[in-house]
Amino acid sequence: MGRWQPDAQGRLQQAALDLFAERGFEQTTVAELAQRAGVTERTFFRYFSDKREVLFSGEAELRSAFVDAGAGAPRDATPGDVMIAALDAVATFFPAERRAFARQRHAVIRANASLQERELLKLAGLASALADALHARGVRGPAASLTGEAAIAVFKVAFAQWIADPDGRDLARIQREMLAALGHVTAPG
Amino acid sequence: MGRWQPDAQGRLQQAALDLFAERGFEQTTVAELAQRAGVTERTFFRYFSDKREVLFSGEAELRSAFVDAGAGAPRDATPGDVMIAALDAVATFFPAERRAFARQRHAVIRANASLQERELLKLAGLASALADALHARGVRGPAASLTGEAAIAVFKVAFAQWIADPDGRDLARIQREMLAALGHVTAPG
Repeated sequence: MGRWQPDAQGRLQQAALDLFAERGFEQTTVAELAQRAGVTERTFFRYFSDKREVLFSGEAELRSAFVDAGAGAPRDATPGDVMIAALDAVATFFPAERRAFARQRHAVIRANASLQERELLKLAGLASALADALHARGVRGPAASLTGEAAIAVFKVAFAQWIADPDGRDLARIQREMLAALGHVTAPG
Repeated sequence: MGRWQPDAQGRLQQAALDLFAERGFEQTTVAELAQRAGVTERTFFRYFSDKREVLFSGEAELRSAFVDAGAGAPRDATPGDVMIAALDAVATFFPAERRAFARQRHAVIRANASLQERELLKLAGLASALADALHARGVRGPAASLTGEAAIAVFKVAFAQWIADPDGRDLARIQREMLAALGHVTAPG
């Protein structure tokens, strides 16, 4: 039917953001998403298991970035060094030109508890991935989990700043600042 | 009918843990929960909006503890001081005799993605509560959010330790240790 175009996945993601913003997540059907993107429902299900997953397709790549940062760090790197490498790696997924999309996605997720829950599960998965990578490096006890959770705390707060930041500082730089601020908060008083 | 007993809510919580562990969360109905607890379905819905919420009834109290820690801290307390006060307050909800219940609940939640998401939403709500309390104290910028997220990172990792810890150290002490470890991870290298 000549309907297929190369970037069906990208168009489905944009259609999802638009329709979820216009009508609400619950009120939007897969049929409507497919129609807006100009694809069939069958095509939709080739890329995504359900309408919620359209907003979470980059998860595996982010997880790999965290795991690879652990695997690629020098042997004498501390958990803190590995965390910085992981955060820098994640920041490369969010260049300035992705900011508008990220901001729109953030607003859609904030508006729906089910999407918030899914986003939190994604972030928890990233924390676990970094913890596992540190375990694999021989980091013992709760230090690995704690470093994973700290990385996500920094990423989460930095990401909200990055989206809102009008003067366009890059995510890696904001993350470094947040990490320094976290060090200040948790320093013995 | 002589069915009503004072602690219907507590029996429903225990029935939920038992049935979710035995049959799985998805496979358990409200009717079965009510029957196991010896109450009617109507009684169930007097306490809980659905079967998932049975596992999350203490949320409002934990949130209040976080908010009150912010409101009750001395004027010159730093965000780090407020965080410690909040963590200490939360620890009072988990005396040693609650450990078995908490461990059972933890296992049930780990087994189901929907319950994990709900638990993460609860923790995110606690982080926001502490951030709001710090905002109300005049803490500016991302320091408030960051402190909220750091508190949850410490609570989450400490709680998993507390549940698993065979020698019975109390949660407040484990949290202090985790906070010190977090300070070490985030310290400039």
